[in-house]
Amino acid sequence: MSATLYLLGVGPGDPDLLTLKAANILRKTRVIAFAQKPGTPSMALNITKTHVQKHAALLPVDVPMQVAPEAAQSAYDLAASRIAALLDQGKSVAYLCEGDPFFYGSAMYFFDRLSPEHAIEVVPGISSLNAASAAIPRPLVARSQHLKILPATMAEPELKAELETAQSVAIMKTGRHFSRIKKLLSETKLAENALIIEHASGTDEKVTPLLKYSGDNLPYFAIILTHKGNETP
Amino acid sequence: MSATLYLLGVGPGDPDLLTLKAANILRKTRVIAFAQKPGTPSMALNITKTHVQKHAALLPVDVPMQVAPEAAQSAYDLAASRIAALLDQGKSVAYLCEGDPFFYGSAMYFFDRLSPEHAIEVVPGISSLNAASAAIPRPLVARSQHLKILPATMAEPELKAELETAQSVAIMKTGRHFSRIKKLLSETKLAENALIIEHASGTDEKVTPLLKYSGDNLPYFAIILTHKGNETP
Repeated sequence: MSATLYLLGVGPGDPDLLTLKAANILRKTRVIAFAQKPGTPSMALNITKTHVQKHAALLPVDVPMQVAPEAAQSAYDLAASRIAALLDQGKSVAYLCEGDPFFYGSAMYFFDRLSPEHAIEVVPGISSLNAASAAIPRPLVARSQHLKILPATMAEPELKAELETAQSVAIMKTGRHFSRIKKLLSETKLAENALIIEHASGTDEKVTPLLKYSGDNLPYFAIILTHKGNETP
Repeated sequence: MSATLYLLGVGPGDPDLLTLKAANILRKTRVIAFAQKPGTPSMALNITKTHVQKHAALLPVDVPMQVAPEAAQSAYDLAASRIAALLDQGKSVAYLCEGDPFFYGSAMYFFDRLSPEHAIEVVPGISSLNAASAAIPRPLVARSQHLKILPATMAEPELKAELETAQSVAIMKTGRHFSRIKKLLSETKLAENALIIEHASGTDEKVTPLLKYSGDNLPYFAIILTHKGNETP
């Protein structure tokens, strides 16, 4: 049996939103890798803890946050070479990804470094976006509407232009950009319908209308969902 | 125990992409509802068949396709009143939704008709979009990029304008609009990177570069994923 790197979506937070496929892979894989902010317990590992084998080897990937992006890329270089060595020894590795592996996130860094020389299987997971929509609860997008997924880190003129022509919108990675985003959403008639979803599907899930949110920052992983007009998406 | 309507995401096609949560709900729910084109077996029911209880009552919702939208809405009216009656009798109902319930799809029609009078729980599922991205395999969206999800049924000027400023794009509901979409993607420099994904995650999953696809139509549920420029998303 040749070794495979599983880029494994583990869902948005609720351990029951793991797929049967992910649970099966965890039961047979003896090396479990996951990214973590140094010193912070991994949420992805926490989500999957009842499925990870007792004797599995844990391979944390310490990713320095809020420093030069080169430092993060060096961390992925190092981790990819360790994973490559394990695969070459015939040991399969599951790399845990919060949400879906290919919806933002770090799985792509391993895919870029290790494909096509190594066998890689991408296992989709429930994304935070779908969990956020279930939480409010309101359709993410419906009928013949379009949906834009916009990171708050976009340049302001482009972001504003996209919001002007939007129907349904999800704003990702808001964090410290919250005040600016709130202003932009007001200017583009998207503030009134906007809901902020924190920790979608988790035990600490929280939904707040944008206009009632007090504070100048959002948690990085909070999502804002909104739409134009009176009709729900 | 009060009765609940579960709007239950069952994932894109692979039965193993069902969530643990959906499997648990199916094991305890005795009425299973699902939309179907009259005379066509339900894909959602097929995905879940190993989890549906032997003695569960099946409640097919016959939705006439490609006729006046009013006919479909009458079908949802009728089905919603039958579901309401079951809930009032204390019987919980699981309404099976391919992919994710609130990412396009018919779940919203039941939510609109039955909330807030009845208890409704939306259980997110793996959307066809995430499965398509895993299938190619290529990130759906990454870093500080934005993603647009555009139905082929959009008016041409709006669709073209959205494609002009796109980074990553998913085109949904292409079907008989394929020739027009192919032309639009060429004009907006999105054709070269475009991949067509049919039956993502299913046993008949198929990935074809847009420029090599012969035929004038796509299956309705096929997805086109593409992005601008040389860098993968």
